[in-house]
Parts: sequence; structure tokens; C-alpha cells
Amino acid sequence: MSKTARAAVLVQYESPLQVQDFPVPSDVGPGEALARVEMAGICGTDIHLWLGQLPVPLPVILGHESVGILEAVGAGLERDWRGQPLAVGDRVTWASSIVCGECFYCRIKRQPTRCLQRKAYGISYSSSVAPHLRGGYAEKILLRAGSSIFRLPEHVRTESVVGAGCALTTAIHGVERCPILWGDSVVVQGTGPVGLAALAVARQAGAGRVIAIGGPAHRLKLATEFGADVVIDINETKDPGARREIVLQETGGYGADVVIECVGYPEAVNEGIELPRDGGKFLVLGQYANAGNISFNPHTITRKQLEVRGSWGFEPRHVDAALRMLESGRWGELFASEVTHRYKLDEANEAIQAVKNWQTGKAVITP
Amino acid sequence: MSKTARAAVLVQYESPLQVQDFPVPSDVGPGEALARVEMAGICGTDIHLWLGQLPVPLPVILGHESVGILEAVGAGLERDWRGQPLAVGDRVTWASSIVCGECFYCRIKRQPTRCLQRKAYGISYSSSVAPHLRGGYAEKILLRAGSSIFRLPEHVRTESVVGAGCALTTAIHGVERCPILWGDSVVVQGTGPVGLAALAVARQAGAGRVIAIGGPAHRLKLATEFGADVVIDINETKDPGARREIVLQETGGYGADVVIECVGYPEAVNEGIELPRDGGKFLVLGQYANAGNISFNPHTITRKQLEVRGSWGFEPRHVDAALRMLESGRWGELFASEVTHRYKLDEANEAIQAVKNWQTGKAVITP
Amino acid sequence: MSKTARAAVLVQYESPLQVQDFPVPSDVGPGEALARVEMAGICGTDIHLWLGQLPVPLPVILGHESVGILEAVGAGLERDWRGQPLAVGDRVTWASSIVCGECFYCRIKRQPTRCLQRKAYGISYSSSVAPHLRGGYAEKILLRAGSSIFRLPEHVRTESVVGAGCALTTAIHGVERCPILWGDSVVVQGTGPVGLAALAVARQAGAGRVIAIGGPAHRLKLATEFGADVVIDINETKDPGARREIVLQETGGYGADVVIECVGYPEAVNEGIELPRDGGKFLVLGQYANAGNISFNPHTITRKQLEVRGSWGFEPRHVDAALRMLESGRWGELFASEVTHRYKLDEANEAIQAVKNWQTGKAVITP
Amino acid sequence: MSKTARAAVLVQYESPLQVQDFPVPSDVGPGEALARVEMAGICGTDIHLWLGQLPVPLPVILGHESVGILEAVGAGLERDWRGQPLAVGDRVTWASSIVCGECFYCRIKRQPTRCLQRKAYGISYSSSVAPHLRGGYAEKILLRAGSSIFRLPEHVRTESVVGAGCALTTAIHGVERCPILWGDSVVVQGTGPVGLAALAVARQAGAGRVIAIGGPAHRLKLATEFGADVVIDINETKDPGARREIVLQETGGYGADVVIECVGYPEAVNEGIELPRDGGKFLVLGQYANAGNISFNPHTITRKQLEVRGSWGFEPRHVDAALRMLESGRWGELFASEVTHRYKLDEANEAIQAVKNWQTGKAVITP
Repeated sequence: MSKTARAAVLVQYESPLQVQDFPVPSDVGPGEALARVEMAGICGTDIHLWLGQLPVPLPVILGHESVGILEAVGAGLERDWRGQPLAVGDRVTWASSIVCGECFYCRIKRQPTRCLQRKAYGISYSSSVAPHLRGGYAEKILLRAGSSIFRLPEHVRTESVVGAGCALTTAIHGVERCPILWGDSVVVQGTGPVGLAALAVARQAGAGRVIAIGGPAHRLKLATEFGADVVIDINETKDPGARREIVLQETGGYGADVVIECVGYPEAVNEGIELPRDGGKFLVLGQYANAGNISFNPHTITRKQLEVRGSWGFEPRHVDAALRMLESGRWGELFASEVTHRYKLDEANEAIQAVKNWQTGKAVITP
Repeated sequence: MSKTARAAVLVQYESPLQVQDFPVPSDVGPGEALARVEMAGICGTDIHLWLGQLPVPLPVILGHESVGILEAVGAGLERDWRGQPLAVGDRVTWASSIVCGECFYCRIKRQPTRCLQRKAYGISYSSSVAPHLRGGYAEKILLRAGSSIFRLPEHVRTESVVGAGCALTTAIHGVERCPILWGDSVVVQGTGPVGLAALAVARQAGAGRVIAIGGPAHRLKLATEFGADVVIDINETKDPGARREIVLQETGGYGADVVIECVGYPEAVNEGIELPRDGGKFLVLGQYANAGNISFNPHTITRKQLEVRGSWGFEPRHVDAALRMLESGRWGELFASEVTHRYKLDEANEAIQAVKNWQTGKAVITP
Repeated sequence: MSKTARAAVLVQYESPLQVQDFPVPSDVGPGEALARVEMAGICGTDIHLWLGQLPVPLPVILGHESVGILEAVGAGLERDWRGQPLAVGDRVTWASSIVCGECFYCRIKRQPTRCLQRKAYGISYSSSVAPHLRGGYAEKILLRAGSSIFRLPEHVRTESVVGAGCALTTAIHGVERCPILWGDSVVVQGTGPVGLAALAVARQAGAGRVIAIGGPAHRLKLATEFGADVVIDINETKDPGARREIVLQETGGYGADVVIECVGYPEAVNEGIELPRDGGKFLVLGQYANAGNISFNPHTITRKQLEVRGSWGFEPRHVDAALRMLESGRWGELFASEVTHRYKLDEANEAIQAVKNWQTGKAVITP
Repeated sequence: MSKTARAAVLVQYESPLQVQDFPVPSDVGPGEALARVEMAGICGTDIHLWLGQLPVPLPVILGHESVGILEAVGAGLERDWRGQPLAVGDRVTWASSIVCGECFYCRIKRQPTRCLQRKAYGISYSSSVAPHLRGGYAEKILLRAGSSIFRLPEHVRTESVVGAGCALTTAIHGVERCPILWGDSVVVQGTGPVGLAALAVARQAGAGRVIAIGGPAHRLKLATEFGADVVIDINETKDPGARREIVLQETGGYGADVVIECVGYPEAVNEGIELPRDGGKFLVLGQYANAGNISFNPHTITRKQLEVRGSWGFEPRHVDAALRMLESGRWGELFASEVTHRYKLDEANEAIQAVKNWQTGKAVITP
């Protein structure tokens, strides 16, 4: 093994990522694992991070959606999260976060995604602090003891896993918190990775009529492939009121049973909250970053007798569920088809810009 | 029986109610009932109606929280909603609304409070249309066939029923939609009738620590009697941030398991949504009238992984549950103690003004 | 219209049905409807009735799964249950039961299938009492005011509706009470009409691996077509312990998330309760008739930490949901394919015997 | 500290416990804790163990409900389960079980009480294997790293904690799995420790009418103190049918919303399943040991449309909830009042016999 590994580092918000060399530990500690990164996804959250919209301890090696090959496995790390044997050479992915398992949220309230000590690869670790290699935009990553590692079945492609990324696990968690009953009509706002993943989960959950609102055209084509019965192009139907009319027409005049916001712009919440039927559900899944305030009428919540739910991140068991989805051929291929652009580490900054400018499907780094 | 009955009518928004005479039907139709009104509560909603904040078919005889004595009972009306025999002379109350039982919301989605044909006594009927007498601020009221009538047990005082009013049934429905688990810490925003009722329901539901935010002092005293462990006086602690600090201190630093908004001012939603712990629940119960927009950050819903729920009105079975609560001595007396001001029909306008100006506990009309 | 209608009557348990003539009312009352029966299904319950295993007021015209053509529509009956206009000549089906809407179970506990006054066509009405025609094995049926009538869309075949019969609505209600989460592994015990319907609903609900236990071979072939991933032939694998081994193998060694008993023999409950994983669910759907006791160990419920649920009959909204399923091509054809034997009214007794002797798929009467 | 500790050991089923000496470790390992046992409860399960009705690795030091004083605290064990600082001299209790946190039930299905590796103090550890001291009937106990230790607040009496024992945590877990809604009528079968604890939890959860079935008289007196509105003495009303009549009378003729079986005899399940109203719930909490089969009619589950639930043991968070209950004066005193008999280690066998022969309230050992 080489003694150093290269990584693309966010040194300063809104400035080009810098490729730097970091020492690779010659030995891994108990429970740790060293992986050679095979592919790392560029998530919309990475753009938020680059823009400085979420506080992180700069400098940070970005990348929280990755697949790698195990190069070293620490003492005691004999099995993956599912109990499968783990060995050097295995192709694996891992949950981006580690939680403490001991705090109020982990223990008593069973909301581990809100763990007070939660730390995520590619987000929460400063690359200036040893052991440095804690992000996916890198040749190597050192996984902490206690990481939730999943050995990938041979027939699950790396592109499927990174193409699904944290969008799929996020959607799975979201729908767990805001259940779709079979036969429910569903609106998905947004046709980015999270929106497509939400479509997939809605279909899996037996949704009846599924309506996607988004764009541009190539995204809507994907939305149809992912199972949308109706797509509404926001570039064609620019008025939210007109879009609502279409939703009402497609849902017998009442609105959908479940609406899933996967947009990220705060104003989408104002559009979305008018789309469920009375007594319906509205899952606010896309407001991961604090993108500011909207002028909002809370009377709507009371009058429409809504259930509005939020969902933050995901747990390792949602990675398990996602992988089970990807193991069934159709979803694996569909999510792999999201990967449209590949970049080398040196091109990480280009990759960021391309995603930021909506020029890609899913962009990935293959270090 | 006299041939006419007097009633206080809202003829024009923000204008004094007018006392008018209406013909009393000499005979009642099948399933109908004629009652002599013994007491009618003045609800906060009546103030919203008087101000023109909810659309109603003027002129309207106000009054949707009433107790009366049956003077005539139509053919086929032999039993009350609970199956108890009904007869002339019985003291009764009734659910304010009638739903169609046939629409999308009644039949398929089981959200009858959102029935497309729902009509409420004291709100939805024009007094200029026969049979006129469809509100509680009147000597007589004619109940439609299909009304949900409840014969009152002798030991349940009229003051208890009207003192609890639609606040209690609304709170019962709200907590049904947003369940309090035993041991949960609960914050109730608002110490008006709905807030006090929410306190009562929280206590019944086995809440752990219960914190009330409201005022003025006499209301906070009631809040304590209704079971609040901690009261926060908004006139003393004027800064919502400071109030939040108290809530955090009282809940181990995390926020409450359940927060119930019973205020009505839209801005209370911004204060309230910061009071649950992460993964907690927020019931928006007080935004019955459309009182305008707030500057709102939807990121909070995602980040705190909240469940936000709305609840509209109530169903007859919630009246049944409310009466069962009132039958147990403590609650009956407590709700009766809310009744502080009594007015004759001629004084209905005074009554409205007194409530509007926060000068009363519960004000009632005894025609 | 002819003045009389013929019907097949259960006059005495375990004796041949008798075809009798009944007067057809020349006029229908308000809300009533007269239908010419096009097709009536023979349900397993009819066999239980014939055997005298459920108490009914003999003589009874059997038949509670029917499609007919409206011949007369009473005053005020202008729309079907879904609000669609109704007229003479419309092809319709109807919920077999009418509930009172007023009792403890209808009103307070919202368990209308346990209504204290519930009456079902083809089961609860004596044919010796006017208006006689209250069952589906007849040329005509007179539907009471308050019946839940559904106009059939043109593209939904009569065979689909009768082929699905009350099995599908029963399965939909059952799964509502015992929800399948998407991805859940499911075992369906029994491959008769209820078992096949449960398979269909499990698939709609997004079940992961679905295992059917039943027979004979032609039923298992249907089970595969209905979506079973694995079928276990009880004639091949005769030992329940061996069948359990297969279920464990197919579910990672733990048992299924949800097990649905659709057999009817009491002993199936002993087999089924061992098939869920710990903390799993067991829906006892098939024990509609009282078929006697089993030797049962209740320790299993505690030790395996189970959720065991029962479900009785269905509500009109489940007919609505069933019809929506049948409107999607695949299910419509599949359920229609269950209809293998057609009988005339005169052959009703033959039909009963054929079903009793397991010689048919779904047998129907076309009067 | 002395070099050895005495403990009462179950060497052979149905034979007198033997008091033996075991070496006390001079040093405790990382995360471990050594406690001097102050009081250990004798649980009904201990009787089952003594009788050989649950498989355990003899010889075993019994005792899984204990309070002790910390005598040594291993490296890294700085805080209790709730995050409170831990130190030598603290009075503590601990959850009896440790789970792996990694298996199918811990990770994916979140049913940790069914953990495949679960081990309980006083039950699952052979005293012939070092470090021997793994049960509460002993002068000392050595707690494994990963034990869920709770420092007791000063005002919570040791008698309250041991008096409540695992009965209270079991009842809390059970009611979590089978929720009581406020206002629900509840029947508790059994007035032993689990039954009394279920009464307490039902009261906390806001139950309406609560009916206890049990005996003998001193237990029924306790049941009344714990909040039963009605007690049915099985020694007076010996016929289960007559007891059912009383339950029906007390619940409006329909049966209870929730029935909690806390008896242990299998036949109680046959009595209990007839006590809920249709659509009601039945929690089978008492069948912890395999006490054999009953003749059971599964038709009841379908016809009554029941929810039957099992619950096994408890999790550490239920200990937390139990301690919060005990911190409120009334419950602390009530549970302490269950402790009627105290025995020294040498008298452990007498204690077992006294409990086995129903001669005690709660019996405890104070080594």
C-alpha cells in the first residue's frame, strides 16, 4: 500500500476544492477499517456544504456516499452490519453517520438520527485532525470502529449504490415516518435524486396514483421510468396554482393522500401544503439545509387537519432496506442509470460546479 | 308555548347583535326537536364570526355551545345519541355540527369533521331562512333531524357543560389526532378555554410534566387548578426566547414530547414549533380562523424531525367523551368554575364585547 | 317485468336448496332498488351456512356476492355509494351488509362490522318474510334503502367482481387491521379465494417475499400467478413442522413479518402462530365460522411477543377499494380467472356440492 | 473488602438453594462494576426457575431484581444509563438483561427483548463459571460492561424499587405494546406483582373504569389502593362466566377496551379473551413460562375482531420510566408497601417456599 492518499478538500466555502496528500495509517486499530474508495457520489448536500449553508469544521474532505474495497480490517471487525463475514478485498458501502447509542435521543426517545454526538463521514470531521481520511472524495478512507459497514452482494453494482446514494435511504426513512398506505395517491415534489428515490419508495409501498412535479425534461423522463403516473413540468406549468389544479384533477378533486416535498427551496413547502386532501399527510423531506423563511399561513394546518412530518437523515437499517431494494433488478438498474457524469479526484471541483449548475444526473468521483 | 321566540342575531359584522322575534313552529317534523335554551356559551369563535373572520351567511343567530330543555320531540326521535330514551322535559346538549355521512370525507377517508356538507348551529344557518331558529343565543332552538343530542345526567351541571363548551371537545379530538403517551411532557400554549381544556385532557391522558404558557394571572391560576405543573406568564416573560428557555429547563434541556398550540395568533406557531424535543409532536389546534401569515422557517420541521398535526372541530363521539369527563366530579366543577359572567339575551352584545376584551372567564347567555 | 322471480332457498340445513317463486314488488319504496341478478358467487361461507355452522333464520335465499342490473330505483336513490349517478339499466354490485350507524360499535368504537344490528343479504333475511327477495341466488333481489350500491365501470367485468367476491374485501379489511409494511415478508396460509385475495393485497401493499401454503396444485398455480414467490404444497409437505422449516429458510431463519391465516380449519392457527418472527404479526382471517377448539399454548404469544389480530367481514369502503384494484387490468383478469364453474338457478344445489367437494375454482350462479 | 462473598445458589431444580462462597475479584475490568447487594426481590419467575420450568445453566445464583451499593467501578464507567455521574458508594439498580445490539432483532426489527444473545442476571449465568457473581441473592454482584445501571435518587426508597421489581417494567413494556387510550375501560386479570403494576400503569395512562380480577383478599385490598374501581374475588366468584357477567355489567354490557392478563395460568387466557369488547385489545403478559396448553377456540379472535398482543421482558428505557413513576410519592409508597417479608441469605430457601405458597406480598432478601 502506498504511504499517502490523495483527497479533495473543502478548505474554504465557495472556493475550489484542493487535492491534498494525507498519510495512510500503516496499521488500523481495533474495529477500524481502511477502504480504497471506488466511487463517491456528489450529493446536493455537498453543494450546500460548499456554499457554507451548513456549519462544518473546515477543512473537510467531502463525500458521504461511497463504495470502496477493504484494504485493512481491524481486530474484532469480523462481520458486517448484517452479520456477513468481512475480509480484505470485500466491496463495501457504509452508513455515513455514527451515533453514540447513549444519549437521550438514542436511548430514550429512539430518534438516533438526532443523536447529540452524531458525526458523518464527509461532513463532520476536519481533515486537519488525524487520522484525516474521513471523507469519500479520496483515494482512501479510514472507517471508525462502530461504523455500519455493508458488504455488497456481487450482483449489486457500485453505480446502483452510489446512484441511489443517501437519497434513497433518506426517502426510506421519510416514508417510514410518514407511511404511505397501499392505494394512496402520492405527490412527489421534486425530481432530483431524493424525489426519484421517493417515487421508487412510493411505488414499492403500493401507492395508487403517483404524481411527480419537477423538471427539467430529462428528469421527468426518469420520473416516469421510476413509476410516476403523471409528471408536471415546472418549466411548462410555471404557476403553482395551475400545478395544484392538475393535482386536484388527478385526485378526484380532493388532493393527494400523501405529499412528499423533495425540493429544498423553502417556497416548495407553501406549494406542497396545499396539495394533500384534508386529513392527508405532508412529508417535509427536502428542507435539510436552512434556506430561509417563507410567508406561511398556519391556519392551513388546522383547517385541512393535516399531518405534517419531518425526517432527518437515516439509520443503518435504512441502508439495509435500500440495498434490498437495489438487489431486485429493476431498481438497481434504474438507480444506476442516474449516474451520468464521472470525474477524477483532480476534477472534483468541476464536478461540484456541474452539479451546482444542474448539468448532471448523478455525478460521481472515481478517485 | 309562546308563538314566537327571541334571538340575538349577527346582522352585520362588527355591529351590535340585534334581538329579533322568530316564529316558533307549532309542530316539529320527524326526527326534529325543539328546545328551550337554558344556557349558551360565548365561544372565541363567536368573536371571530363577529369580526367577519370566517365566512357565514348573515344574518345568523350565534351560539353553538348550548344546553336546553326539550319542549317537543319529532316522530321517530326516541333515543339520544347514546341510546338513552329522550322525552319532553329532558335537559340536553347537542353536537354543534351535522355531517352528511355520504361524501368522500365522511365515507372513504373517515374525516367527518371535513365533511363537504357540514353545517353548524350558530354558524352556518341564516336566520332569514325558515325555520330560523338554528342558534343558541335564543329562547328556542329547533334541532334538525339527525342532530346528535345528548341527554344530560342529573349530576352534570349545565355550567359544566357550557363551561367546557366546544373547547373540551376540540381538545379531545386534537389529542386523539396527536396522542399524548403517558409520561409525556406537554406544553400547552394558551390558557383560554381551549388551553384549559387541553390541560385537562393532557392530565387525563397521563401526561408527566405539564407546562402552560399564557395569561393573565387569573387564567394562570385556573391553569394550575386544571393541572399545570408550571405556568409561564406571557406578561412577565415577554420574550418567546426566554419562555423557551424555561420550557427547556423544565424538560431536561430537550423540549417537550408534545406541544399543543391553543392560542389563535399565528405567531404562536413560530414560538410553539421550537418547543418540542426533536422527534416530538406539535398540535396546531388554535388556528381555527384565518388570522394571516407568519414568517416561517420550514427547515425546522425537517431538522427537528417533527410531527405537526392539525385538528378541526370534533365529532359527536367527542361530545360523548367530554360528558364522561364532566361526570367525574373534579372536572365538572373545574369547568363550571370557568363560567364567570352571565348575560340575558338583551345583553348579548355586551357579552360579545366583554369576551372580545378579555374581561371574562367563560361568559354565557341565559336567555 | 314479470310478476314473480325464482330463487334458490336453503330450507333446511344439509338438504338440497329448493327453487321457489316469490312475488316481485310492482313498486319500490324510497331509497330501495330492484336488481335483476346477473351473477352470484358461491362463497365458502355458503357452505358453512348449508351445513348449519352459523345461525340463520331459515328459510334463506343464499347469495351475498352478486352483480345485477337495476330494474327499478326508489325515490331519492339518485347516486351510488361513490356519488355516481344511478339509473335503471346500470350494472351494479353492493356491499352485502347494512349496519345501523347508531350503536355502540358503529358510533363510539368505530367497529361497524360488529354493528349490533348488522344484516347481510343472503344470510340474515328469512325468505318467508316479505319482501322475500333478499339473496343473490335469485332472478331478482330487492335492495333495502341504505344499501351501499356501486355502479360498475364498463371495463370491470362481472366475472372479476364475483370472482373476487367477499374474499377480496375481507382481505382488504384484514390487512387494514394488520398492516403489511413495504418490504415485509408475508406468509399466506390457504390458497382458496380468501388466500388468493390476501396474496393480491400483500403484493399491492409492497410485500417483499411472499410465501403461500396451500393446495391443490391448480390452486398453487393460481397462487403463483397472484404473486407468491414460494408455494408450499400441503399435499406434498404434509408435516406442519416441515412447512415451518421452509418458511424459516425463506425468511432468513427467523419467520415472516406477517402471517395471514385464510384456511378456516382451527388447527391452521396452531401452524400459523409459529410462522411469524418474534415481534411479528399474525392475522386470523379465516376463522369466520366456529369450527371448534384446538389444543393451544398461549405461552407462544408472550414469548414470541406477537401481535395477533382478528378481522370480521368488511365495510362499504373496502368494496370501493376492491373495485379500484379490479379496475387495474391485471387484478381484474386474475380474479375473473378464478371463475371456473357456472350454474343455473336450478343447478344451485349441484353448485353447492361442487364447492363443498373442492371441485371448483370459484363457482357462480347465472340465474 | 472481604475476599469472598456468599450467595444462594440453585444447584438442582426443586431442591433447597445452597449458600456458597465465591471469590470477589480484587479488581474490576473496564466498564464493569462491583456492587454490594442491599436488597434482592424474589420474583415469581424465580419460582418457575426453581421448579425447572425455564431452562437455565445450573448452578445459578438467582435474583434479577436488585438494589446495591457500588463498591468498585471499572475504567470508563463514569456515568449511569441516564448520563448521571457514577461513583463508588452510589446506590444503584440495573436492568436485568444485556442485549447484543447487533442481531436481527436488535438491529433491524427493533425487538431487543428478543435479542438472540440476551442474558439476564440471576437467570442466564452459571455460578460455576468465573466470575461467578452474576445474581442478586448474594452479598456481591459483578456487573458486566454494558450493563444498564441506574443511580437511585435519594428519595426513592430501596423498598420501592425492589417492591416494583421487574413486574413494573414488564407492565410498562406491555402497555407500550398494547396501548391504553385515556378513558379506556381496563380489566386486569391477576393481582400479583405484575397485576398490581399493570393497575398502576393503567391508572397512569388515564384509564377510565379499571376492574381487577384476583385474590386473595389482602391482594384485592392492595388492588383497590393501586387504583382498581372494581375488584372481583376469584375465591368468591369462582365461575369465570359469572366473573364475565360482572365485567359486562361494569362496561355497559360490551366488555372492556383493554384486558391485561397477568396470571400465568394458561386457562386465564381463555377467560381473558372473552372480556374485551369486540374490536378490543387483549394483552397476554403473564404467560412468561411455558405452563402448558389449553383447549382454545380461535374463532373468537376473528369474530370479536380482537387485537391480541404479547410482550416479553423489558428494555432499559422501561426501567427509566419505572423509576420516574416511583419518584412520584404515591407510587413509591404503594410499591414499597408490597414488601411484606424480609429474609437473610441463609433463609433464601424459606423465602422461595413462602412465595411459592402464596404466603407473602413481595418477599425480599437482604443479604
